[in-house]
Amino acid sequence: MDNHLKIFSGSSNLALAKEICDHVDVNPGKLAIHRFSNENITVQIEENVRGDDVYIVQTSCPPVNDNLVELLIIIDALKYASAGRITAVLPYYPYVRSDKKDKPRISITARLVADLLETAGADRILTMTLHAPQIVGFSRIPVDQLLATPLIADYFSRRDLTDYIVVAPDVGSAKKAEVYARRLDLPMAIIDKRRYADDEKAVAKYMFGDVEGKNALLFDDEILSGGTMLQAIHIIREHGARRVFAGCAHAIFSGQAIPRIIESPIEEFVTTNTIPHAPERLGSKFTILSVAKMFGDAIKAIHQGDSVSKLFND
Amino acid sequence: MDNHLKIFSGSSNLALAKEICDHVDVNPGKLAIHRFSNENITVQIEENVRGDDVYIVQTSCPPVNDNLVELLIIIDALKYASAGRITAVLPYYPYVRSDKKDKPRISITARLVADLLETAGADRILTMTLHAPQIVGFSRIPVDQLLATPLIADYFSRRDLTDYIVVAPDVGSAKKAEVYARRLDLPMAIIDKRRYADDEKAVAKYMFGDVEGKNALLFDDEILSGGTMLQAIHIIREHGARRVFAGCAHAIFSGQAIPRIIESPIEEFVTTNTIPHAPERLGSKFTILSVAKMFGDAIKAIHQGDSVSKLFND
Amino acid sequence: MDNHLKIFSGSSNLALAKEICDHVDVNPGKLAIHRFSNENITVQIEENVRGDDVYIVQTSCPPVNDNLVELLIIIDALKYASAGRITAVLPYYPYVRSDKKDKPRISITARLVADLLETAGADRILTMTLHAPQIVGFSRIPVDQLLATPLIADYFSRRDLTDYIVVAPDVGSAKKAEVYARRLDLPMAIIDKRRYADDEKAVAKYMFGDVEGKNALLFDDEILSGGTMLQAIHIIREHGARRVFAGCAHAIFSGQAIPRIIESPIEEFVTTNTIPHAPERLGSKFTILSVAKMFGDAIKAIHQGDSVSKLFND
Amino acid sequence: MDNHLKIFSGSSNLALAKEICDHVDVNPGKLAIHRFSNENITVQIEENVRGDDVYIVQTSCPPVNDNLVELLIIIDALKYASAGRITAVLPYYPYVRSDKKDKPRISITARLVADLLETAGADRILTMTLHAPQIVGFSRIPVDQLLATPLIADYFSRRDLTDYIVVAPDVGSAKKAEVYARRLDLPMAIIDKRRYADDEKAVAKYMFGDVEGKNALLFDDEILSGGTMLQAIHIIREHGARRVFAGCAHAIFSGQAIPRIIESPIEEFVTTNTIPHAPERLGSKFTILSVAKMFGDAIKAIHQGDSVSKLFND
Amino acid sequence: MDNHLKIFSGSSNLALAKEICDHVDVNPGKLAIHRFSNENITVQIEENVRGDDVYIVQTSCPPVNDNLVELLIIIDALKYASAGRITAVLPYYPYVRSDKKDKPRISITARLVADLLETAGADRILTMTLHAPQIVGFSRIPVDQLLATPLIADYFSRRDLTDYIVVAPDVGSAKKAEVYARRLDLPMAIIDKRRYADDEKAVAKYMFGDVEGKNALLFDDEILSGGTMLQAIHIIREHGARRVFAGCAHAIFSGQAIPRIIESPIEEFVTTNTIPHAPERLGSKFTILSVAKMFGDAIKAIHQGDSVSKLFND
Amino acid sequence: MDNHLKIFSGSSNLALAKEICDHVDVNPGKLAIHRFSNENITVQIEENVRGDDVYIVQTSCPPVNDNLVELLIIIDALKYASAGRITAVLPYYPYVRSDKKDKPRISITARLVADLLETAGADRILTMTLHAPQIVGFSRIPVDQLLATPLIADYFSRRDLTDYIVVAPDVGSAKKAEVYARRLDLPMAIIDKRRYADDEKAVAKYMFGDVEGKNALLFDDEILSGGTMLQAIHIIREHGARRVFAGCAHAIFSGQAIPRIIESPIEEFVTTNTIPHAPERLGSKFTILSVAKMFGDAIKAIHQGDSVSKLFND
Repeated sequence: MDNHLKIFSGSSNLALAKEICDHVDVNPGKLAIHRFSNENITVQIEENVRGDDVYIVQTSCPPVNDNLVELLIIIDALKYASAGRITAVLPYYPYVRSDKKDKPRISITARLVADLLETAGADRILTMTLHAPQIVGFSRIPVDQLLATPLIADYFSRRDLTDYIVVAPDVGSAKKAEVYARRLDLPMAIIDKRRYADDEKAVAKYMFGDVEGKNALLFDDEILSGGTMLQAIHIIREHGARRVFAGCAHAIFSGQAIPRIIESPIEEFVTTNTIPHAPERLGSKFTILSVAKMFGDAIKAIHQGDSVSKLFND
Repeated sequence: MDNHLKIFSGSSNLALAKEICDHVDVNPGKLAIHRFSNENITVQIEENVRGDDVYIVQTSCPPVNDNLVELLIIIDALKYASAGRITAVLPYYPYVRSDKKDKPRISITARLVADLLETAGADRILTMTLHAPQIVGFSRIPVDQLLATPLIADYFSRRDLTDYIVVAPDVGSAKKAEVYARRLDLPMAIIDKRRYADDEKAVAKYMFGDVEGKNALLFDDEILSGGTMLQAIHIIREHGARRVFAGCAHAIFSGQAIPRIIESPIEEFVTTNTIPHAPERLGSKFTILSVAKMFGDAIKAIHQGDSVSKLFND
Repeated sequence: MDNHLKIFSGSSNLALAKEICDHVDVNPGKLAIHRFSNENITVQIEENVRGDDVYIVQTSCPPVNDNLVELLIIIDALKYASAGRITAVLPYYPYVRSDKKDKPRISITARLVADLLETAGADRILTMTLHAPQIVGFSRIPVDQLLATPLIADYFSRRDLTDYIVVAPDVGSAKKAEVYARRLDLPMAIIDKRRYADDEKAVAKYMFGDVEGKNALLFDDEILSGGTMLQAIHIIREHGARRVFAGCAHAIFSGQAIPRIIESPIEEFVTTNTIPHAPERLGSKFTILSVAKMFGDAIKAIHQGDSVSKLFND
Repeated sequence: MDNHLKIFSGSSNLALAKEICDHVDVNPGKLAIHRFSNENITVQIEENVRGDDVYIVQTSCPPVNDNLVELLIIIDALKYASAGRITAVLPYYPYVRSDKKDKPRISITARLVADLLETAGADRILTMTLHAPQIVGFSRIPVDQLLATPLIADYFSRRDLTDYIVVAPDVGSAKKAEVYARRLDLPMAIIDKRRYADDEKAVAKYMFGDVEGKNALLFDDEILSGGTMLQAIHIIREHGARRVFAGCAHAIFSGQAIPRIIESPIEEFVTTNTIPHAPERLGSKFTILSVAKMFGDAIKAIHQGDSVSKLFND
Repeated sequence: MDNHLKIFSGSSNLALAKEICDHVDVNPGKLAIHRFSNENITVQIEENVRGDDVYIVQTSCPPVNDNLVELLIIIDALKYASAGRITAVLPYYPYVRSDKKDKPRISITARLVADLLETAGADRILTMTLHAPQIVGFSRIPVDQLLATPLIADYFSRRDLTDYIVVAPDVGSAKKAEVYARRLDLPMAIIDKRRYADDEKAVAKYMFGDVEGKNALLFDDEILSGGTMLQAIHIIREHGARRVFAGCAHAIFSGQAIPRIIESPIEEFVTTNTIPHAPERLGSKFTILSVAKMFGDAIKAIHQGDSVSKLFND
Repeated sequence: MDNHLKIFSGSSNLALAKEICDHVDVNPGKLAIHRFSNENITVQIEENVRGDDVYIVQTSCPPVNDNLVELLIIIDALKYASAGRITAVLPYYPYVRSDKKDKPRISITARLVADLLETAGADRILTMTLHAPQIVGFSRIPVDQLLATPLIADYFSRRDLTDYIVVAPDVGSAKKAEVYARRLDLPMAIIDKRRYADDEKAVAKYMFGDVEGKNALLFDDEILSGGTMLQAIHIIREHGARRVFAGCAHAIFSGQAIPRIIESPIEEFVTTNTIPHAPERLGSKFTILSVAKMFGDAIKAIHQGDSVSKLFND
């Protein structure tokens, strides 16, 4: 009874899945996904998986709910096909921002997603940079969370960072920005959107720390429409910042995010391929760092029973 | 601690939900459903539901997977808002045709759906005309299945049915057609698509029973693209059938189904509003019977602890 | 930590279990089953099974409920004896016909059986020819369903089938008969027990298709008292059928089934040994095909993590 | 949404169930139990039970396994018929003596029974005099255990007990006998079946305490074939006991128990109707005390949310 | 079947429980907690709770693990005593800071606590000011989280807050401090403990915002030894802050916290009674606001099925 | 994917854990247990355990509840660190005496402990000499129960036992004493604390069996304060017993047990190291037999899939 490592891919991010397979040096698992005229999805696993150690790569990008349901169906098919262990590999975790009950009678959908994955038959989750570290605790199956921070920070660390400063676009993200600031050994500024004093020099009030004459690095864990970040850039420019660079783990880029970034003063936007984007839609401003090696190494470690944390501690 | 009956509606079929509320004589429950630019759905229940007996109406029609995920999120929000009992009211059950493992390593997704509903927090299911009666056994929470057959058959029974015959479009649907034939006290014919003998009188081989000079009634539980039914009509016309009428419980009408039916020899197509269709898209050929009274009566019975089966046995 | 394949047998069908063991080339697992004077059953597994891949063969035949409870107790004993994986091998699945809620407030007992097996500790089910393919979906543990159809059809295919016809004893079994008809490439007839026209030539009305002068093959998935089949034979003889042969996967043969078949015009009755029958009780009319090789091959495939579906697709 | 108390009865002990219904002053619930020719049991609940507080009386007596499976099917039918709460009323608990693992690789079947009842859908258990008090801990649903001891002891306490002694038939039952001795304020003797000293006056060695010239009361929680008790009587008679009386909660009376007791020196055998016995099979030696009032009072207390323990503490 | 509201108290905070009972106007539930010489705890619920709506108040303070195990035992006793619904009322949630996996192979114990409470039989949790809002998502039973922020902020809002500033003791707590700043409409400062620039004016570097000549309000959700807060006070005093006030929801006060606060420049320390402290141990600096009314109102709302969120939104 | 045997130890009994590791010939697993000033425990597993077969040794001794919670946290950390299988090794099972509901509305805490262990993530339990054999049935995960009886009995069997007698300190422990008596082939006496006859020769009444001039061996499964045993010694001395020896599996020794035994007529007290005692606190009267070899052999057998029962049957 052998225990083969097999990697399957849902429809969401075939390029990343292929790259992971290449890194792990396995052929992508054979899988037929069909969508009927009534929009129902059928999945057939086209190779024997009995007893195998199976990984299924599916990220959360539009069509978000089709991808989620497709993932659940694939897991169900694998489970009843007697896969030995099923790991849901979620480069970007579905509904990750829905992680708390900040209004009455709403759903903590990131928790529901963990429940649905477990019900469908997932034995483990492998994901990257969750919106809050507590989200790991939503799941009753083990979660390995990889962090994109080192990947992105290391990319920036290769340049001369004299006169650079890390800027948190609001108080709520100060803690995350601090992680980058520590890693890059840079000072930090925090934008505060409240007015909090009586005098009327409004601009001065919106900024903790001094960006005057500095090159600003703005970081966030994910960018949707980019509104918060672009507003932050406006403020720091008013405070005298010079060049502006940005980075994020997950580039959702919904709505007009891409053209707005292209037109913005951001010189370079560094992100990863957890969300796929057609290169032709992105301009030369964008640098996409691949997470394939990180996921591939983690999959190999999980398969072989090696420590995942050891892979990434530096 | 009162125990109010409350009916909420997902996005899929607001008209039917409204009609059910009217029949039950309650105001629709207040619910805010929002879809972010990243396609994530958020749901807020906008009224207190603690301890209440809550029904959430959501049918399975395009966008199928958005509707399914939306339903799961609504149920989750209701559960953690401390609803007393949650009944998923599914006029057309999601993935109902995915009910067996007729190929290796596929998912019995209708069973997965039952699991997901239970995980999200549903206590009961109320649905109509499942593809197979065994599907009730997929669920570990009680299922009340209403049947559209009497509604549709009774509609036809009001006309003079002399020289009418019920036609099953293939052997697999013979059993379901027989239910209509019995109820309408009509003869039956069955189309057999196999060739099964050596001689070449092919046409004769494809038909059990005699439709020559008869008016044909074709029934199915659901119509997708309508291909099977239109092919059947072609065959029975070759065998001398005169007028043709059709009926089905669930009118999915995917792809070119509507124009094809409009152009077909079908004189009248009778179905229900379990799947919503804009009246302007349907021509005068279509008769839509409302299931609102049936669902409303069932909801009242469930709420009051009355027998549901008693409502409908005649 | 080795992972031995072990096959145990309940009391129901020791001969088949022995034959399966011989085919798999293992000794039957040692097990002491004792029935006290108070009818309580005790089971002791008489060999170490820690970590082993254990199969327990128990069919559903009289005493049906003793066999079911005995099976649950054996599984429980194996589970707490730390068996590595437990597969319930059910040649004939208990309560398989109780698969839908066709009357109010009845139990879908085939689903309850799946629940009880899982509760007792079964990890998998291996069974044959379920009454409906949906029954696989009743279980939350993987089910491998073998099909007796090829075994029986292949037996008949070895003779000259010119002028043979497959007959479905009623409309409800038309779909199952069609599977045999396709496999044997034979025409089909269907008996319809309703009266559906005004004229009084009653006999003609009861038959779809023409059996005049043909040799009839009647198939069903299981035979209880044989009433439906014998009534069908009466009808097809009136319609001019010549010789009559019958086949079924599961020969329950309750009540007077055996003498009635012996006295009937059936020339040969072909079935399997999923239900044990003392050869001396059956006359020369009966041909029993052994399913031991099919079950043995499936057990070997499951044990080795090979595809079960691949074994049987032809 | 009313919450009616309803009492249904399985096939095992209709007389006791009827007596309980009379005591509670409700009509027995309507239930159709059918046993097919293939020995499969079907159950139909013949009245609406939605939301009701349902009690199902089924004792464990031959046919033990039919009664157990029947009970599970009834519970399943009630659950999916949407009963509000289901209490399994088990006058004699199935497989109660299978409560420990005193040999390797056996089943603690009394625990399995608790699991099966919960899986089928029971919410509570109401039972009487378990073999060991720890068995209550086998169940994950609440168990109310009634005790037959007061019923039987009080019966004896009405006579003049001068020169009576309670005798435990072996060391293992000393603790249980002590409960009777305390309640009746009587001395106790214990039979020890081991030989434990060097001298050869074997008979003397087998007895703790002095029964010489005393009237002996032998108690056990259940009597199967009666072997242990009859052997004990032989020993105490050799030690000079005069009259002998016996009592037990559960009279299984398997094998030749009844004639053996009739022929024995036991003057009166006092037991309860937890196990039904045709009066004509029992001679005049037997006194049957009814537990109907105790069960009826407990059911009323459970239904009304009153304390059950308060009912019986005296 | 009535449904009484009953409030029981564990050993941890009898005074608060009593105060809550008074506010709700019920007598404290009768409960005997005994600790044997072997340190095992036994609990007996001393009144009937069948069907009742039961609340059990237990906070997490030393002895932390005794209190946690005692709570689990009380819940277990209530569950098997057939309480209708059990709400664990946790003024300070056990192990609340253990909410993420910030080192490899550690336990998210706040999640484990939720699992243990559910296993023991809790149906709901009512708690106050969790360390992170995501912790609500750890539980599979509904959680009502009350917030101490309004209570504490409102206390301060009654004074003249001219020249006051809210200070976050580190970047990680900036978000929480901001909530107070918004509510009190005050400016904010954040202490940053990193060095982040090249010049050596170290003191200036450690502070975002200007506290010079201001009165500082320091807030945290919980205070253990007080080290972080006292270090922060040292820094802000160096930056010219004048008077210093502090507030926190949960006053653990471990080690030398109390004397250190007494000796510190803090003029007034405002906290709540979620953790009990003997008044004589606290000096006049401490102001304890009672949460009894908030918990009492929440309990009444939960019992009556009213909205809890509505109680506290202002 | 290797499957290493690893043994970790909680804080309760490091010496025994070390001895077990030595016997199994593995290094103790690396584990950091820290107790914060707020009494919260944190645990970090300091080596990779992915896929490993992990044993965690934790006995139940003061501080009982700290040890229990610590055990649950360790198991939780191991589970989410992806250990392959987790066995809780409990030399003395927590709350083992709380095994029945002998008063209304109490907790069967030994069952709750089994539930908590399973919830935290334990896959198996390995323990020794439970208070009642039924306790094994409390757990839904497999339990291997080792017995200290042979260890202790064999120790005594090495001396000349002429004129020795086994004494049960009360009727309730007669059954357990009998096991020793059988194993040592000795006579037995039982102390009965009730007065049960009218005459006033009280002393004679308290004893079944004759200890006059005999050397008494008193056995119990566990000793708390020693009260029962010391009272028994008083009685047997009055009945003429000469020398007195005592033995028990689990030496809790709460309160003044140790000095009271030292001052008592007991010549030698034989017990095991399931509970740790500082040797300097015990006098020369105490003989401690190590259970390390038994646990070590059991762990090796479980790891290798060998029979545990076979190890110890003699």
